[in-house]
This record gives sequence, C-alpha cells and structure tokens, in this order.
Amino acid sequence: MTSAALSRSEAAELDARDELAGYRDRFDIRDPDRIYFDGNSLGMPSVAVRDAVTAGTDAWARQLVGGWEDWIDLPRRVGDRLARACLGAQPGEVLIADSTTVNLYKLAHAALNVRAGAVVTDAGNFPTDRYILAGVAEARGRRYVEVDDPSDAVTVPDAALVCLSLVDYRSGARLDAAALTPRTAGLVIWDLSHAVGAIPVDLAPLDLAIGCTYKYLNAGPGAPAFLYVRGALVSSLHSPIRGWFGQRDQFAMGPAYQPASGIERFAAGTPPILGIAAVDAAVRIVEEAGIRRIAAKGAALTDHAIALADAWLDPLGFVLASPRAAAERGSHISLRHPDALRIDRALIERANVVPDFRQPDVLRIGLSPLTTRFVDVWDGLDRLRRLVERGDHAVGGSTDVRVT
Amino acid sequence: MTSAALSRSEAAELDARDELAGYRDRFDIRDPDRIYFDGNSLGMPSVAVRDAVTAGTDAWARQLVGGWEDWIDLPRRVGDRLARACLGAQPGEVLIADSTTVNLYKLAHAALNVRAGAVVTDAGNFPTDRYILAGVAEARGRRYVEVDDPSDAVTVPDAALVCLSLVDYRSGARLDAAALTPRTAGLVIWDLSHAVGAIPVDLAPLDLAIGCTYKYLNAGPGAPAFLYVRGALVSSLHSPIRGWFGQRDQFAMGPAYQPASGIERFAAGTPPILGIAAVDAAVRIVEEAGIRRIAAKGAALTDHAIALADAWLDPLGFVLASPRAAAERGSHISLRHPDALRIDRALIERANVVPDFRQPDVLRIGLSPLTTRFVDVWDGLDRLRRLVERGDHAVGGSTDVRVT
Repeated sequence: MTSAALSRSEAAELDARDELAGYRDRFDIRDPDRIYFDGNSLGMPSVAVRDAVTAGTDAWARQLVGGWEDWIDLPRRVGDRLARACLGAQPGEVLIADSTTVNLYKLAHAALNVRAGAVVTDAGNFPTDRYILAGVAEARGRRYVEVDDPSDAVTVPDAALVCLSLVDYRSGARLDAAALTPRTAGLVIWDLSHAVGAIPVDLAPLDLAIGCTYKYLNAGPGAPAFLYVRGALVSSLHSPIRGWFGQRDQFAMGPAYQPASGIERFAAGTPPILGIAAVDAAVRIVEEAGIRRIAAKGAALTDHAIALADAWLDPLGFVLASPRAAAERGSHISLRHPDALRIDRALIERANVVPDFRQPDVLRIGLSPLTTRFVDVWDGLDRLRRLVERGDHAVGGSTDVRVT
Repeated sequence: MTSAALSRSEAAELDARDELAGYRDRFDIRDPDRIYFDGNSLGMPSVAVRDAVTAGTDAWARQLVGGWEDWIDLPRRVGDRLARACLGAQPGEVLIADSTTVNLYKLAHAALNVRAGAVVTDAGNFPTDRYILAGVAEARGRRYVEVDDPSDAVTVPDAALVCLSLVDYRSGARLDAAALTPRTAGLVIWDLSHAVGAIPVDLAPLDLAIGCTYKYLNAGPGAPAFLYVRGALVSSLHSPIRGWFGQRDQFAMGPAYQPASGIERFAAGTPPILGIAAVDAAVRIVEEAGIRRIAAKGAALTDHAIALADAWLDPLGFVLASPRAAAERGSHISLRHPDALRIDRALIERANVVPDFRQPDVLRIGLSPLTTRFVDVWDGLDRLRRLVERGDHAVGGSTDVRVT
C-alpha cells in the first residue's frame, strides 16, 4: 500500500529514525550532492570492500603462492556466508564463481542432462538470460519457448528447464517463487540478480539459482557472481565446463575428470581471489545490517518514491510501471515516459541525479537501502520534476545508452 | 647450451650488469630472505598492479555506473596491449575474459562448429585442458585422443581440433608452434599459460590461443585470462556461451542473440573491471621491459640453474627433466627426485625457498625474469643442496600439495 507523499521535513524525520542510517557513512561517497538512483545497476563501494581488496593484494604480497592454502576454499566459504546472510540456503549450496552469464550456462546444461523437454523463459527476462537459454536449447536440440507473462512459464507442459528472474529488471516486479516452482515438472533456475541483498530470498524449497554481486551487494563492477544448487541435487548435476577447480582431488592432476562431490563441481578455472575477497566484505555488511531490515527500508523508500511520483510526476506524463504493493516489488521502481531517454541523460548531466534508462521508455529509480536516504528520494524526484517542468530535458544533450 | 657453474660472485656480477635488474625494485617484496622459485605458478605483485587495483576502486567510487563508459571496451583495449607487448598479435585479436579454462571451453566448441573430426591433445597436457577437451568432445560426439608426445598430436589424421601447451607445465619444454601448426588440418588452440610474459610468442601464423595472466604477467591470483582468435577467423567462429557482453548492439537488449562483429563476441558476462585493471598494469611492465630482454634473461637464469644443478644436485640424485637448450625451454626447469615432495615442503618450511612440486616426483624451479636475480638462483640451489646433503627433508614435515 502506498502512503501519501511526504514533505521534505517528514522525509528527514524518517532518516533520523532509520536504524540503518549509519551504514551510509561506511560507503565511499565522493560527491555529497550527487543523488544515486542506480545502485541496482552498480552498487557503491563501501570502505570495507575497498579495504578487503587492499588486504587481498597485501596477502598476495606476503604469502605469494602459499596464499592458496587459504584461498582454495574461499569460493565456498564466501558462498556459505552469502547463503546465510540473505539467501536462506544451507552451507555447501552456494558457490562464488565466474559471471552470472557463465553460471546460468552451467546450470542450464546441468538441468537438461536430467530432464527431457523444452527450455522456457519469459520474453521480458534479462537479455543475457534469454540469449544463453536460447543458445543452450539450440545446442541441446530442445524447443525454446518465450512466454509473455513470466508466471505462465511454469504452465508449459513439456518444460525441462524454466528460468525466471525473481525481480524483473525493468518493472521491479517480484515473483512468488515458492508458489510457482511446484507448478512445473521442469527444474527452475531463479535469476536473483535484482533481488539479492535487497530482499530476503528463501532458497530452501527451490532447486537452482544464480545471481550477481555488483548490484545491491555492492561488490564492484564485474565482481564474481554466485550459483546455488539445492543440496539434495548437487550429486546428480554436472557442469558442462569440466575445469580443474571442479575436479575431485584437484592436485592429483589425474588422467580423467571426476567431479568434486560438493558444490565445487560447478567451479571451472582458477577463482579470482581479489574479487571474491570483495564479495566477502560486501556480504558481511548485509549480514550485519540484516536482510529483513534492509528489505523493510527498501519497501519504505520505494513507497515514498511512488507517493511522490503520484503527486508530482503523474501530471507530467510519467506512468508507474511497477507494482504498488511493496511485497510485490524489489527495491527499484520504474516510470515510463515517452522522453525517458532524454530525461535520463539530462538528469545525469544537468541535475546530478543518476537514474537508469531501459529500452524503450523506462526510467529506473533504484533505491539501494544501505546507501539511499529518504531525503535523497525527495530531492532526486524534486530535481526530476523541476527539470521536466522546465522542459530542460528536451534541449540538446546526449542519448547514448549505458550499462546495467 | 649450458654454461659452466658460476661462483656466487660471478652471479652477483651478472646481476650488476643486468639491464632488467631495476625491475625487481618495482615489486612489493616483503621478505628479502625468501627465495621465490614459483613465479611460474603465481607471479609477485608489482607496486603498479597494487596501485592499479586501488585506482580501479577509486574510479568506481568517483564515477559509479558512469565508469562503464570507459570500462566497456577495457577487455579489448588491454587485450590489444597484451597482443602488442608479447604475443605478436594484431589489434582486435586478443580479449581479456573469464578464466583460461572457460576460454578454452569457448574456443574448443567454436572450433568444432567449423571442423569435422577428433579432438586431440597430449596426455601430459595441463589437467584443466585435458578435462575440458574430453568433456567438449563427449558433448559434441567427437573422438577424443591423447597422444604421448605432443608433437604427434598434429599427425592424427582426422583431427578437427588440436590443443597443445606452448611450454609444458612440468618440463618447461617449448614446442615449435610455427612448424607444428601446418602439419594438421585441425584448428590448433595454443595454451600460452607457461609462456606468456616469459618468452616472445608469435601468434601471427597461428589460429587460436588462450592463457592466464597470473604467472609471468604477475596480475594476481585468479586474475582474468585472455583468448586470441586470428583476425581472419573471428567472423566465422561463435562462442557457445552467448552472453550479453558478446552481443552486437548490447544495450538495445534486443530479442535475439547476434554476435558482435569483433573479438568481443567471445565475451560472456560482465567483465571484472578491477581484475582487468590489474592485468593492464601488469602488461605495461612487460611492454616497458621488452619481451625479448625478458626472455634473454630467462634463458640466462635457467642456464645458470642447470649448470648449478649439474654441479651440485646431480650427485644428490636429481635428474634434469627439462631441455638443455635454452631455445627449447620456457623460464622454468624441472628436477626429478624420488623425494621431491618432501624436499619441496622442507625447502619452504625450513630453508625459506619456495619451489613447486608436481606429481609424481617433479620439483619445479621457476625463474621469473623480472623478479629473480642470478644470486637468487645460486642461493636457492645452495640451500637446496645443503638441505638434501644433511638429509633434513627426510625428517617430519608436511606433504600436502598446493596450487599451481
């Protein structure tokens, strides 16, 4: 339910009472005037992540190759921490590895080894998911199906594999994973990229998941991703990429590949240690702040943004393209506007507000709970309102499109 | 040709005349007494690499998502630098991406799309190469062949794909790529992991290559790897991992995958920016020092080590397992000894010398030219000689095996 629009002093009052307010001070914020609404693309660096990378290079200098005695199980240790902090998964079910794209590729092939039938996703799923799934389906000679409504994916009768984003990258709409999963005979891979670190995820009843760490987890541009395999399934699934870090008794360097018994079987090459150290530090902050408190603040921030959008932006031609009920959203909202691209560029270049544009007409407002204040929402949307009221976005400016 | 064993003062004299001697001071060396013979597993951190990682986190803090305007083509820009510095490749032929393992997987599938026949490697090739190739062959329904002598791989008549390491990870033996390549109808993927940054590689006449950056390039534990595709082949080869960073017009986020026209088609997920920044700084040092000077010093260091091994270690039961001609080696030598594992552990734990052990009986002595002095070779092998003479390695100590 959406509340009435707050005044700026009421927003400031919410900040004063916010239990998580102090976390913002633990981030390396360079421009206090800049209002950053794009932590759902790339989160901000915390001092702890910066220090962890420095400590990682320091450990490398001190220990040299001996550092591997500690690093060798870092992908699993940090995976366990992430599982505990915000995924509702058990130790040994989550591994930090590769990119989200490569992890999806691995799990998709693994799922098709044990299920006959089609590969199914929704036409609005994130591009890399659709491209990977279509490619894997083609390679494996399976039917590839895109449905319009993600909830319909589980109704495709011959599904071997269903892939859905828990939170939609455009609308921010959240699916009910526990309700959808039992409705298909296929294995479901949940892409948690726009959910992890923003809302609590309960993987316990779910089979497979992937996600990135550079959005709400704030682990840095292109930081290593993660994958989840339900413990009971691990021993029956195999990675198509039979790398030496997935090998049982790796340093025997034996003649033939034999997958490790645990989640490590989904590792491929040498893991990126500095990157995983960054993920570790990033996850510790979420663990400390508590994912339920983070999600509650995210819900309040997005409610606040929707109320202001109703009051200020609806008259200017913006249309809310996100669910109004907080329980049905992640931590970003989307506003459609015919001039969304120009408005996005003008906000960045002339108002020091950084939202995000998505084709064809979507302005995304990401409200990362650990780094966004209630007054930021107020000030950012106020600058947006004034920019569009003046018509400033329609004059000149660039229209290049940037990276999520 | 191997020279006679030098005295320590003669070794010191070589250091005094070494044009590259000053480079060692640009590395972050914590323990001046430690003699590091394992830069061929994990190179040492340079101050420049450490600073590049710090600068990367700083750019992230300053620019946030706007940093992608610069980062988006970093994998190609740094690939171009690596191509120029030490690979003899052209701009647009080398990409920094993923791990060596994942890159081999991508190129192996790509090669099999355009060639009928078997997948061939040698039984002594690095484990991850053998595991990946066997897995790809199985997935594609191709015959998988392991030959004993790597040179015989090119004689397998129905080869679609041959994969060989330019420098063997155990013996250090170097293959003549230009001579072997024309002898097969298959596409050859050269694994450059134990060559890149140590010896000049001339990729111009070669089709495909992969390699890591954490050995002689010193870019850090698990730093991003690279792949090479000869320019004329790029448009005919396709990655099996159809990720959004390999997509033409990526931010149109269109309905179907269309590979980028250039080498970027072999990218998969979001590239690890801090890791690639480290690779950039690491490659700049090699570019500045000059790969030919680096290789000449590597040849002199390994000659020096072989002469000392002949004089001191042969009587103690060590057998040289590397070519005697410098032109036939990389920058490490291997010594076989029945007690190699115990000797390796005792050297590390009691003599502050760090070599490397490889199954079943190989002690590897890696002599990374930018960080190893001639006196280090003398002192390290002197400590080895004295340890084995005293029989210290046979008493207690651990026998765990570490990571390459």
